[in-house]
Amino acid sequence: MTMLVERLCIIGVGLIGGSVARAARQNRVARYIIGVDSDRANLRAALDSGVIDEAHGEVGERAALADLVVIATPVGGVPGVLAQLKGHWRDATVYSDAGSTKRSVLEAAAQVFGAVPDNFVPAHPIAGAEQSGVLASRADLYAGKRVIVTPTERTDPTALNRVTAFWKGLGATVSTMHADHHDAVLAATSHLPHVLAFVLTAMLGRRDETQEIFRYAAGGFRDFTRIASSDPLMWRDICVANGAQITPLIEAYCAELKAAASLIETGDAAALHDLFAEARAARQRFLDQMESPIPSC
Amino acid sequence: MTMLVERLCIIGVGLIGGSVARAARQNRVARYIIGVDSDRANLRAALDSGVIDEAHGEVGERAALADLVVIATPVGGVPGVLAQLKGHWRDATVYSDAGSTKRSVLEAAAQVFGAVPDNFVPAHPIAGAEQSGVLASRADLYAGKRVIVTPTERTDPTALNRVTAFWKGLGATVSTMHADHHDAVLAATSHLPHVLAFVLTAMLGRRDETQEIFRYAAGGFRDFTRIASSDPLMWRDICVANGAQITPLIEAYCAELKAAASLIETGDAAALHDLFAEARAARQRFLDQMESPIPSC
Repeated sequence: MTMLVERLCIIGVGLIGGSVARAARQNRVARYIIGVDSDRANLRAALDSGVIDEAHGEVGERAALADLVVIATPVGGVPGVLAQLKGHWRDATVYSDAGSTKRSVLEAAAQVFGAVPDNFVPAHPIAGAEQSGVLASRADLYAGKRVIVTPTERTDPTALNRVTAFWKGLGATVSTMHADHHDAVLAATSHLPHVLAFVLTAMLGRRDETQEIFRYAAGGFRDFTRIASSDPLMWRDICVANGAQITPLIEAYCAELKAAASLIETGDAAALHDLFAEARAARQRFLDQMESPIPSC
Repeated sequence: MTMLVERLCIIGVGLIGGSVARAARQNRVARYIIGVDSDRANLRAALDSGVIDEAHGEVGERAALADLVVIATPVGGVPGVLAQLKGHWRDATVYSDAGSTKRSVLEAAAQVFGAVPDNFVPAHPIAGAEQSGVLASRADLYAGKRVIVTPTERTDPTALNRVTAFWKGLGATVSTMHADHHDAVLAATSHLPHVLAFVLTAMLGRRDETQEIFRYAAGGFRDFTRIASSDPLMWRDICVANGAQITPLIEAYCAELKAAASLIETGDAAALHDLFAEARAARQRFLDQMESPIPSC
């Protein structure tokens, strides 16, 4: 039986890349999996646990010899990886990534290659966890989740189809979107909430040192701050890469927050009720959508 | 066998009051449970489902004839309930509440009675859910959770002991705290996060109407916004009652958020990493504390 991918190379075998490898193996999408990771301990763990079949500390001739290469480093690492890949770039290989920002990845590719190569198809699986490293990776991380691919006008349709088929093979539903639209949407539903959670948890952590407030925090606080346990390096890179979309949202959010604060200050109970009821209804819309089956496209 | 409470009266038989009733019955802490609720449908559901033994649409002579009266309405309803209770006030009864703010409850009692009655012991169980109404109530809502009691200098020690024993009987751990300290701590770990979640979800809900952003939101967003599904009326009341503590926190938070935004804007990767790592470490401290057994006091 021929598999979709004979040789799969994953660069960055952490939570995301490790889960791609596990899912590709479990779903019989890839036969042989090469892992590249600059973190020796993580790389060894990936090899020892059978997540990858072959381990490399850096991108080289042999690592790059694959049918599909998926870059799964934090987005700040993508330009460097593309530069390393350049010398080994093959027309017959399809290249993709799994980064949370897509404009920055396209810009990096354009910078390294002069123009975004036709066989490079940026992708973003909308799935994750607050843990990091290959030991946190899971074969089912992408099952039933969405993956957004952001091809350019020049992207080779065959390469796009292969990347789409690959993610579908891992159990995901694939949508196509312009990179800028992707970055705007994800800034709102993912990047902004992460910044809010990080900033709140850091601020309250400082207060906790003198006032022991965490002792009296409950399940609501635990869930609200879950994403503040996410990988600082990954999120540093996302914020830098998508700052143009994130900072106006922070501005807008602060303005809304201040409006709410003055409703609280003036004791405007009716307006507060309306605001909170609006939020509750909006979240219900989100939940209804999340629970309904994702239509395939 | 004598139970701790022969006749328990719960005013407001929603998620919180209904859970008090269920827990009191399951733990054999109360023999006979009287429920008072102005919402007819909710009151009937409480009676039909056996959560309460006797139902009243308002506070009256018979409803108030109890060993322990627990006010479990939204905090905005407490002054009115106390005014209704005044005509039936008995020295032999112990009174308590389950409100999320304590200064406002003490002030209401002082206003209605001239001074906070000796047999009124304000309490706050730190437990809840985003659902509301008696049908969402659970016998185990308080098991393993914290309850803060905020007696005044005049509080009768016997009344305090009874209220403490009552909540312990429901499976909770009871801490004693000054009302102002309670309000400051809860403003940080509960009220502020709720406002942040409500404001974010309302803001993104408006954007979703034109841009369908919720379609691409994932588990992180679901958890981050869970508390935005909380009862708008309950939270309206909390914000009005504890505005003095909440609004300075919103101010402080906005300042921290803007500082983070300028780190993003200038691409200060190192400072962003430090901030996010600080948050992650703070949350780990919180989790370690949450998972360790609560020392009894």
